[in-house]
Amino acid sequence: MQTEEIGSEMQLSTGIFSCLCGWFKALIGKYKDKVLELAKYTKKIGKDDPRRVIHSLKVGLALTFVSLFYYTRPLYDGFGISAMWAVLTVVVVFEFSVGATLSKSLNRGFATFLAGALGVGAQHVASFSGEKGEPFLLGTFVFLLAAASAFSRFFPRIKARYDYGVLIFILTFSLVSVSGYHVEKILKLANQRLSTILIGGATCIVISIFICPVWAGEDLHNLVAHNLEKLGSFLEGFGDEYFRISESGEIQVVSKEDKSFLQAYKSVLNSKTTEESLANFASWEPRHGRFGFRHPWKHYLTIATLIRQSAYRVEALNNYINTNQSQAQSEFRRKIQDPCTKMSSESGKALKALASAIKEMNQPSLASPFLANSKTAMNDLRTALQGALSDATDLLEIIPDATVASILVETVSFVEKILEAVTELSDSANFKPADPLGISMEKQVVPCNRGSVRPISDGDIVITIHEKHESK
Amino acid sequence: MQTEEIGSEMQLSTGIFSCLCGWFKALIGKYKDKVLELAKYTKKIGKDDPRRVIHSLKVGLALTFVSLFYYTRPLYDGFGISAMWAVLTVVVVFEFSVGATLSKSLNRGFATFLAGALGVGAQHVASFSGEKGEPFLLGTFVFLLAAASAFSRFFPRIKARYDYGVLIFILTFSLVSVSGYHVEKILKLANQRLSTILIGGATCIVISIFICPVWAGEDLHNLVAHNLEKLGSFLEGFGDEYFRISESGEIQVVSKEDKSFLQAYKSVLNSKTTEESLANFASWEPRHGRFGFRHPWKHYLTIATLIRQSAYRVEALNNYINTNQSQAQSEFRRKIQDPCTKMSSESGKALKALASAIKEMNQPSLASPFLANSKTAMNDLRTALQGALSDATDLLEIIPDATVASILVETVSFVEKILEAVTELSDSANFKPADPLGISMEKQVVPCNRGSVRPISDGDIVITIHEKHESK
Repeated sequence: MQTEEIGSEMQLSTGIFSCLCGWFKALIGKYKDKVLELAKYTKKIGKDDPRRVIHSLKVGLALTFVSLFYYTRPLYDGFGISAMWAVLTVVVVFEFSVGATLSKSLNRGFATFLAGALGVGAQHVASFSGEKGEPFLLGTFVFLLAAASAFSRFFPRIKARYDYGVLIFILTFSLVSVSGYHVEKILKLANQRLSTILIGGATCIVISIFICPVWAGEDLHNLVAHNLEKLGSFLEGFGDEYFRISESGEIQVVSKEDKSFLQAYKSVLNSKTTEESLANFASWEPRHGRFGFRHPWKHYLTIATLIRQSAYRVEALNNYINTNQSQAQSEFRRKIQDPCTKMSSESGKALKALASAIKEMNQPSLASPFLANSKTAMNDLRTALQGALSDATDLLEIIPDATVASILVETVSFVEKILEAVTELSDSANFKPADPLGISMEKQVVPCNRGSVRPISDGDIVITIHEKHESK
Repeated sequence: MQTEEIGSEMQLSTGIFSCLCGWFKALIGKYKDKVLELAKYTKKIGKDDPRRVIHSLKVGLALTFVSLFYYTRPLYDGFGISAMWAVLTVVVVFEFSVGATLSKSLNRGFATFLAGALGVGAQHVASFSGEKGEPFLLGTFVFLLAAASAFSRFFPRIKARYDYGVLIFILTFSLVSVSGYHVEKILKLANQRLSTILIGGATCIVISIFICPVWAGEDLHNLVAHNLEKLGSFLEGFGDEYFRISESGEIQVVSKEDKSFLQAYKSVLNSKTTEESLANFASWEPRHGRFGFRHPWKHYLTIATLIRQSAYRVEALNNYINTNQSQAQSEFRRKIQDPCTKMSSESGKALKALASAIKEMNQPSLASPFLANSKTAMNDLRTALQGALSDATDLLEIIPDATVASILVETVSFVEKILEAVTELSDSANFKPADPLGISMEKQVVPCNRGSVRPISDGDIVITIHEKHESK
């Protein structure tokens, strides 16, 4: 019986052991999978926008540079523990785009200076009130200014542009006025602190402007053009998509990638916050590349609002692709199919022409013919509708088609509004006249102007678009 | 001649003087106006949300409290210059809602601890490499970790929840590892720094939780309910609005305030960012009031997405109120008017019932009858349409009406989806069964549970809504 027990015990422990082993292997396998997955994801994030990798290296560089102040004996002796503020400034102030970095640096610099001066003044005033009165007076100052500053951050305009400045203002004022109570050489300290902050801020600004700069303005410019293009692609393809599905009377299984142009517009619906912060940062940036000092960034927001409103209509249209797949082809549909498809595709082309006009900074005149075409199609639709009543057998059947037609008409009016807004932008930013061949001379002669990675492909894209326009 | 000159000079100088006087008065007047305007605006911002004023006072209080460390001799002797970190922490960490404050405090606390430990370790390792090798090794550490951390902030999940933590991690690691090169008593310093940060963070947390707390979770809860209500009000009034204008065939001038319910939905279109950040902060909050520890905050985002999608349809409907004002009443319109108005108003009532169910945390069963009514109206519309073809004389004339009807049908399907989503929320958050009388017992018995300012009015609102439902 004892042997049996030992045997079963051994069996049990072998069981546990092999079980543990298996578990351990599974654990390693699981973690290996997770690590591999993470690596893949990291690579994807870097590939999606390689500027991210460069930004990370720039942060590392800036931080290593300011930490030299600690290592280098004469510099450290000059600044002492205050050198810390340079490190702190770099970490907090270095942002992805030049505009954001400038906005934070300038906010931090001015706020520190102002609050430092006020803090020294407050400390000086408080020092007259005797040893007992001083902390009370200082405490009152801190309380009042902190409360007022905290409240001022609820003002939308301050929140948008000076939020960080106000934060640093409270911070510095409290620190200076309060530490003045103990540190005698407060002026020297304030001076050291300010200069190290300036050094940190300047390091960030220089690195962010001169090493592969990321301009918020250019991002906004491209984002707006890109969003226009997304809507354009949708509208260009919508007519075929809607009527083709209906023709065959069944859902055609097409790979998801082919349909991506039908979903791309969804990101436009929620781009408001991004656009607004980019426009804000852009207004801090100096002139760069193709953008002058007072480039009308606000106009982009106007265009973006109109784009978003069109996107809401596109969302409604998209719904009809999805819900309206089982209907058979009616006589009515056959009549409106051509004008609707044309209206949609010409509006799409107009939007794409506007997108390329913005991208190339050309006057948007090339979009007008497309808009005119879609208006002609709108009139054709009107004529078709006037004669279509006799063909309709069942109102229920024609209502989805009629709705699509109606929303398309709305979309055309939005395209017109967008054209107007882009023309306004073009006027106030002095866009150059459009070259009807689609290859702007300037682009070809000064491609290195932007320090871009692919100097010729821009021209290529324009040609492609135009070939498409012509061939359709 | 001399006298003349003097006379004209005097005239001139009097002229200049009076001119200056006038200018000065105008200047004062102008500034007075501006100051008055600013004062009015400030008052408005405070009135819009009185919690803002309280928040500002709380910030002042917290800051004054931690600056006591400077004034109080024994405390200052204990912490020295490190007391600064308490002030810094309060300024940077104190946010409007409890969730945001907690998120920042915890991020800051953990990141400081982790980075401090790593920094001490790095400094220790580097110290083995000799006087010359040490700065190089430390510089490499700083560069690598800074670049890696900066890159990690591009991961959407880290960006959403731990962005601030990563920032503080780089900051502390650089500071500790680098200042270790000079300061011998680094452990003591790190300890002081950590404890002052903890004191600052704890001060913020305590004040933000125990003095008039602002819960991000509650804000999200109310925001979603409020957005539902806005859409509900629009739909409730839309049918009358659309058909009444058309009936009389002219634009009726009504004061803007009366029409505000037609515009209120616009804020819903762009609420995504706010909702997401509130849901993020809410997930940091402990259980409070009616919200348990694992309250399903993510469900609110699902509902919010559906609400936004309905808002896009409402935007399309709204366009028809604006563009479709000059049409005379057709026979066709007369036929669909009743079912459309009913569909719209019953959907609106359903949404409002859902809003009040969320607000009161009741199961959303009271909304079902309204949804059923609007579905009945949808069938009525179908019948009306089947017979309406003979009444139509011109397709062009009926298309706007048909489009409105079609979008309303879509809206009903969204209301159904929202009902499902709210039911899911209600199931996972254990909402209590709805009281058909609209006065929940719990509300009446434990009104002080929430420490709310108006404990009974909630019940009142429900009654009002129900009376409305019945009377219409």
